Amino acid sequence: MTETELPEAPSTEAETELDEDDRLRPEFVRAVLDAVDAGDAEEARLLVSPLHPADLADLFELTPEEDRPALAHAVADLLDADVFAEMNDYVREDLIDALEPHEVADIASELDTDDAVAIIEDLEPEDQREVLRAMEPDDRAAIEEALSYPEESAGRLMQRELIAVPEHWTVGDALDYLRGHDELTTDFWEIFVVDGRHHPVGTCALSWILRTPREIAIADVMQREQTLIPVDMDQEEVALRFQKYALISAAVVAESGRLVGMITVDDIVHIIQQEAGEDVLRLSGAGEGDINEPIRLTVRTRIFWLIVNLGTAMVASSVVGLFQGTIASFALLAVLMPIVSGMGGNAGTQTLAVVVRALATNQLTSSNTRWMIFRELRIALANGVMLGALIGVGTFLFFGRADLSLVIASAMVINNVTAGLGGVLVPVTLDRFNIDPAVSSAVFVTTLTDTMGFFSFLGLAAALGLHG
Amino acid sequence: MTETELPEAPSTEAETELDEDDRLRPEFVRAVLDAVDAGDAEEARLLVSPLHPADLADLFELTPEEDRPALAHAVADLLDADVFAEMNDYVREDLIDALEPHEVADIASELDTDDAVAIIEDLEPEDQREVLRAMEPDDRAAIEEALSYPEESAGRLMQRELIAVPEHWTVGDALDYLRGHDELTTDFWEIFVVDGRHHPVGTCALSWILRTPREIAIADVMQREQTLIPVDMDQEEVALRFQKYALISAAVVAESGRLVGMITVDDIVHIIQQEAGEDVLRLSGAGEGDINEPIRLTVRTRIFWLIVNLGTAMVASSVVGLFQGTIASFALLAVLMPIVSGMGGNAGTQTLAVVVRALATNQLTSSNTRWMIFRELRIALANGVMLGALIGVGTFLFFGRADLSLVIASAMVINNVTAGLGGVLVPVTLDRFNIDPAVSSAVFVTTLTDTMGFFSFLGLAAALGLHG
Repeated sequence: MTETELPEAPSTEAETELDEDDRLRPEFVRAVLDAVDAGDAEEARLLVSPLHPADLADLFELTPEEDRPALAHAVADLLDADVFAEMNDYVREDLIDALEPHEVADIASELDTDDAVAIIEDLEPEDQREVLRAMEPDDRAAIEEALSYPEESAGRLMQRELIAVPEHWTVGDALDYLRGHDELTTDFWEIFVVDGRHHPVGTCALSWILRTPREIAIADVMQREQTLIPVDMDQEEVALRFQKYALISAAVVAESGRLVGMITVDDIVHIIQQEAGEDVLRLSGAGEGDINEPIRLTVRTRIFWLIVNLGTAMVASSVVGLFQGTIASFALLAVLMPIVSGMGGNAGTQTLAVVVRALATNQLTSSNTRWMIFRELRIALANGVMLGALIGVGTFLFFGRADLSLVIASAMVINNVTAGLGGVLVPVTLDRFNIDPAVSSAVFVTTLTDTMGFFSFLGLAAALGLHG
Repeated sequence: MTETELPEAPSTEAETELDEDDRLRPEFVRAVLDAVDAGDAEEARLLVSPLHPADLADLFELTPEEDRPALAHAVADLLDADVFAEMNDYVREDLIDALEPHEVADIASELDTDDAVAIIEDLEPEDQREVLRAMEPDDRAAIEEALSYPEESAGRLMQRELIAVPEHWTVGDALDYLRGHDELTTDFWEIFVVDGRHHPVGTCALSWILRTPREIAIADVMQREQTLIPVDMDQEEVALRFQKYALISAAVVAESGRLVGMITVDDIVHIIQQEAGEDVLRLSGAGEGDINEPIRLTVRTRIFWLIVNLGTAMVASSVVGLFQGTIASFALLAVLMPIVSGMGGNAGTQTLAVVVRALATNQLTSSNTRWMIFRELRIALANGVMLGALIGVGTFLFFGRADLSLVIASAMVINNVTAGLGGVLVPVTLDRFNIDPAVSSAVFVTTLTDTMGFFSFLGLAAALGLHG
């Protein structure tokens, strides 16, 4: 709770440091860095002090890598745990590396388990041990337990700080407990009701407690139907579940059924955003696509997919190789063939994007796969016929050859239908085998449309004996 | 609050109707539809009754279009407002069309403003008027006001039902008010503190109220720094703001500064997911990519982008046309040229995906654009040299021609650098002009890499006088 007086909406902050999209203005970033450069730490602190922790974290991300240590030094006393919790992983790791283990331990101790784990899990094992040694035994135990769960699982995501009350309590008992214990967490939106074995039996939104007389039993106001998250559930599934059931918080349970933690929606929102945004990066072979990752890592991820694509491009071009004689006697075929293959690629990418999203959001399941295939087939046929007619008429008008026009129109229809079918079947098949369809579908579909584009166009031309 | 006894985690529901990813099992969907088909409405209701509203909505989405009316008829008494609120827009519209205006009015009256608006905003103007006429005057006024705000704005998204208390109250006053007024909303996580003009001056999380003695003034526990959402703010910006500041709920204010509504995070979660997922659909030219949209709409969106792509493919192939003589005398060039253009396209798509995501998440701003260009240029050069070396050596080993090998390697480097530069500059430039970079970047970048791929490879071959 802050005691400072702030003006009414919109706050002046928003008008000076931030633009209309809540991005830090470039002039502001430059002013801070100029102050740091000039050794005027006081001016830098003055500029930075009104920033929200999330904006201060953004400032570090927008600062060139080599200037970050100087900035951190200048505004050191403003760099609290919340700022680190909001920071991009790579940027944070760099900064944390520059700190002493006891400083990291101090920061981590201030945070809820989930944020502390996020900071500590990326450290080198050696540094991790040192930081843990510098922490209070309680905090250390909580973090060590969290680290024992797999990465990107509910166990890493959850915070241990939660409110759990026995089922025989009244609303009044719960109110007295909350008022009487200063050490309890202050960030919670629901309280969990547990039985004697500490198994959750219900959830009670705070608004229900506030609106209920003291003498009523908690068991009478709690919601018994609740979504329990197993501690080893993948964070992507946790995110889908939060979204589907519009959850604000959810209990995390161990295999035994014991309540071990709580996940709140604010920890989930960035995972939803990240998981939904990942598809475009994976489909294009750009890996995680984090602009802050070390450049060597980026090159390695991308070159892997480029080399795979090189292999498939060579397969497709070997199809062209079969028709070198036809091309030598009629070079115009070489001019037109990339149109057929390219258009198939475009149509395939459209279908692929739709199918990958529908799979990721659980809209496409085995219940409606057959319907989806027919849907895409109809779309592909409609688009193929339209594009075929267009390119056929265009070719005839431009080159005045009915045979060439017929060949390119037919090839266009064939390749569009191939693209539509491949665009559904490839990702659906990969998904059945539990392979992420976003990661490798594009390579298969493009190979298919390239190969079929060249083969149908040049093959038909050769079969009809087209020549210049 | 339900009084039914449910077993402990995980609930049996999750084990029978849902698979491990919270998707309805295909056997379950089939069983329900079989019961409907057989005219056994009771069996269908029995199967469907344990479902969460979100799962019942999913059931309708997974049911073939022609079977949905029969399903709706069979389970009519389970089809409450919550189910409609969870349903895909197109599926809901179809079902709503089949209902009488007074039935729609009954459903809408049960909902918070935001959900009621979502149902009513898509109706035909004629039907909309009829539904509004059938509603209570209060509800009608609230919805008519919401409809006066632009689509996809905070005004459409917000609910009017919220808790606002005067700043001079104590915590005890607030508690008594909440307990004493049954008509107040029950879904809230924070209460808003307002001054005499009904302008918000602070926010108070329920957990703070619960942990504070009755006699303390609300003004002493409320948080004065708060994020206020202007009523005309676009929903995408609202979502970014919720995410950035980890908000649970936020006050919506009119231009005058008056508190007019509240947006809660559960309404935002699906927008975050949708906006983040849109990029892949837009980049690939698949429009909204909703699998439930009418097929004619899908064909229209996709054919538009395919025809645009056809135009650009013809531009690129006209470059090949310049070199028909070279190709006629050396058909192997036609075999290898798609490799150069295709690899440029792949590299460009990688960069594009990263840049479009970084722009959408506010990670790339004018503060770090120059840094980003250099970063992508270095990556493009590194990858270009590696790929060039690979294809150069491969070509030499396979065809034994040093000149051809040199030409293809150089073209590969040139086209990769072109792809890297285009992949950053095109989306960044479009973004500067306030054009959504996800929508049209791909067309420009692919045209660039195709054209440059053909031109650099065939041009170098022609300049060096390569022939078979």
